[in-house]
Amino acid sequence: MTVKDSSFFLGGARSGKSRLAQQKAEGYAGALVYLATGQAFDAEMTDRIARHRADRGPRWRTVDCPTDLPQAIMREGVPGQVLLVDCLTLWASNLLLADADMAAATEALLSALAGVRCPVILVSNEVGLGIVPDNALARRFRDDVGRLHQVVAATVESVFLVVAGLTIRVR
Amino acid sequence: MTVKDSSFFLGGARSGKSRLAQQKAEGYAGALVYLATGQAFDAEMTDRIARHRADRGPRWRTVDCPTDLPQAIMREGVPGQVLLVDCLTLWASNLLLADADMAAATEALLSALAGVRCPVILVSNEVGLGIVPDNALARRFRDDVGRLHQVVAATVESVFLVVAGLTIRVR
Amino acid sequence: MTVKDSSFFLGGARSGKSRLAQQKAEGYAGALVYLATGQAFDAEMTDRIARHRADRGPRWRTVDCPTDLPQAIMREGVPGQVLLVDCLTLWASNLLLADADMAAATEALLSALAGVRCPVILVSNEVGLGIVPDNALARRFRDDVGRLHQVVAATVESVFLVVAGLTIRVR
Repeated sequence: MTVKDSSFFLGGARSGKSRLAQQKAEGYAGALVYLATGQAFDAEMTDRIARHRADRGPRWRTVDCPTDLPQAIMREGVPGQVLLVDCLTLWASNLLLADADMAAATEALLSALAGVRCPVILVSNEVGLGIVPDNALARRFRDDVGRLHQVVAATVESVFLVVAGLTIRVR
Repeated sequence: MTVKDSSFFLGGARSGKSRLAQQKAEGYAGALVYLATGQAFDAEMTDRIARHRADRGPRWRTVDCPTDLPQAIMREGVPGQVLLVDCLTLWASNLLLADADMAAATEALLSALAGVRCPVILVSNEVGLGIVPDNALARRFRDDVGRLHQVVAATVESVFLVVAGLTIRVR
Repeated sequence: MTVKDSSFFLGGARSGKSRLAQQKAEGYAGALVYLATGQAFDAEMTDRIARHRADRGPRWRTVDCPTDLPQAIMREGVPGQVLLVDCLTLWASNLLLADADMAAATEALLSALAGVRCPVILVSNEVGLGIVPDNALARRFRDDVGRLHQVVAATVESVFLVVAGLTIRVR
């Protein structure tokens, strides 16, 4: 199953993936909905979230869904809207910290995506191309995110690897 | 020199590279030989190795060669077989831990590949795209693996970068 | 604005990016100038720098510019020369350690590139595709470098992602 009008922007830290995903979303007609998974645990994150929100501008409505992303997609994925999920990595991180069942959450995400009736763009961080982390939790996270990326990439219409603000079309 | 019917799947953690390499191998006629370099040092690795072996199914014969990969390739690389090397990163890691001569081992690998008389598919982890590790041994490993990847990529017919279960053809 | 005859080689550790960038530079007519940003803080770096210099051979003149890269580009970027900047990551690291204003330095670099009257090739390490570093300084570095890569990639004529000694054309 491939979800119509869906794309996935996968890239490294500060690769420009969110900006490119936003531009993709803004190219569709429809009310722009930003599904934000980021949670501010400290001043660094609070600043980053506020800066991103300001950068997006007033056309965007923000829906916070740190762990309940599938539910938010189901609720907001209606005709006349355009969804931007930013980002899957933070969602996975929030689930891991909440000790949630990652396989079940992934299933719920796929089923939510399958039911979407509007364009949907997903963003995520590629985190698996460095040295194996010392930390067991970081290794588990890396594995969870890797698996998540594979199933999302298999579900969407187009997949882009973002490098230095430029895209490599992968699918 | 380019080795006929040889391919190299390079990707991150949980990128799907082993699965894609396996599918490539299974597309050839011949007896499937899995050249396994992984060693189980702890429960996490034991589980992972057992899961991978079960996933491959009964068509595959597994040959363990944690450090003696070149010898295994020479012995098994005969007409009527198909070799899958999974993976070069673990081989390099085993060599580093055994304090082996990496340059000599790389030469032995290249010379084994040059003599192969059947299809051969190699898998490895790209580990060089993160922050420079604090740890000197990790830095040396990263350098060794990077050099190894370069010479292998220069030797095989096709090179694929695997991202989110999808391939980017690099060569 | 795109700078004529400019290219950017972005890759991981030991990916072969410097070698490929060098070959690109040597393909141009002109006196070869190596703009070196590396600083030797320890024996490991001293060795690496000396080895790289020997590898380049006698056709190259080396100009050290650990922090004053924009000034070196302005001074050396004259007709009849070919510039190789190796690498932006170390430049950014030197600036960070010197507590310099990264945004101002990036502006100075772009303006130096805009004024160059000869071919210029830039090399950098992609460092953003691993797990988020524990260390706040490493995170800031990763962000700074990511932003720097985006603006440089937007400025040059061609951008290559280097993997295992091979290039993926990104722009």
